[in-house]
Amino acid sequence: MDVHKCIKKRRDTRHFTSDIVPEEVLEKALMDAHLAPSVGLSEPWRFLRIESKTKKAEIKHLFQSATTEAAQSIHDPDRKEEYHSLKLEAILDAPIGIAIFCDYGVLKNFTIGTIGSRQALEWSCACAIQNMWLSLTAQGYGAGWVSILNYESFKLLFDVPNTWSPLGYFCIGKPSTDYKGEPMLQAEKWKKRSAKPYVKVI
Amino acid sequence: MDVHKCIKKRRDTRHFTSDIVPEEVLEKALMDAHLAPSVGLSEPWRFLRIESKTKKAEIKHLFQSATTEAAQSIHDPDRKEEYHSLKLEAILDAPIGIAIFCDYGVLKNFTIGTIGSRQALEWSCACAIQNMWLSLTAQGYGAGWVSILNYESFKLLFDVPNTWSPLGYFCIGKPSTDYKGEPMLQAEKWKKRSAKPYVKVI
Repeated sequence: MDVHKCIKKRRDTRHFTSDIVPEEVLEKALMDAHLAPSVGLSEPWRFLRIESKTKKAEIKHLFQSATTEAAQSIHDPDRKEEYHSLKLEAILDAPIGIAIFCDYGVLKNFTIGTIGSRQALEWSCACAIQNMWLSLTAQGYGAGWVSILNYESFKLLFDVPNTWSPLGYFCIGKPSTDYKGEPMLQAEKWKKRSAKPYVKVI
Repeated sequence: MDVHKCIKKRRDTRHFTSDIVPEEVLEKALMDAHLAPSVGLSEPWRFLRIESKTKKAEIKHLFQSATTEAAQSIHDPDRKEEYHSLKLEAILDAPIGIAIFCDYGVLKNFTIGTIGSRQALEWSCACAIQNMWLSLTAQGYGAGWVSILNYESFKLLFDVPNTWSPLGYFCIGKPSTDYKGEPMLQAEKWKKRSAKPYVKVI
């Protein structure tokens, strides 16, 4: 698929069919993720594929606590109702779930480009995530990024090194809708995207 | 260009020809950036296109200070010499320079998905950067991410709102080499990429 078309088609998906995701599709998506730019060639991305039903239930529970907490800061009752009506995850229904982490442990070796901001490691992971997402889209699949989680509790669900920091949980599968070709939050009339990015010349 | 091919072809480029970048190429790349996923549809990316020669010289100066400081933590003399031989930026020679920021000011409105980590805003910006990068690659151009900067000093170079946080400076132009189809740091024998990403099933 043409890259510009793929960038346009990619959606944050929370509605999936029950179709399985072939192993070769996922493998290709993770290899495409691995081809992302990484600061100082540090490749700090770490993927945990969650197959345990118990673990998925624990993640769902964390989501529920966090979304309840988030809703408390919405004061307008209509807006709050709207929020609760949105489907913001597919933890139990997506065929594949992946927790993605950034490993700050790579900094034990001198890593070019990290003197200004250690965060550059997480930005590299986000670039890898975007590659994975585009790769899935091009292959006819999709992903949804779940970040409504207490990140400290989320990390504690997994037996991972202390140097790992989570970027979130990803629901992966075959989309059952394309949300009319818009971001879901726009299709659901929660928020409109802006026509153009902010660009200033100096 | 096919998305998988583009992902493979994209390079962190520090060597450019003197060819100008047509306006429509840059505009398309920034629109592709704008199509990135953003947490809660917050679109927090902000682009400052730097045309001022004075400003570019100031950025170059920041790079030089930071790279000198970074080199101090390399103890092996051969490795230090290798580090100094690497071309890690193209601030004065790339035809286009863009400073990219994340605007945390979007959080003044309730933003879905940010309760777990405010960093999710920066991850959205990194996804936008990856889109921009792939778009430039598909159009025959390239980009290099400069993160060897004191980020606080870098921010102070620009008259931007206090809520803006920089992700770095991007050198954009037509690549004069593809580094033999490898990351430059591998082509220069600084570091090897790993064959596969870390994936564990639980």
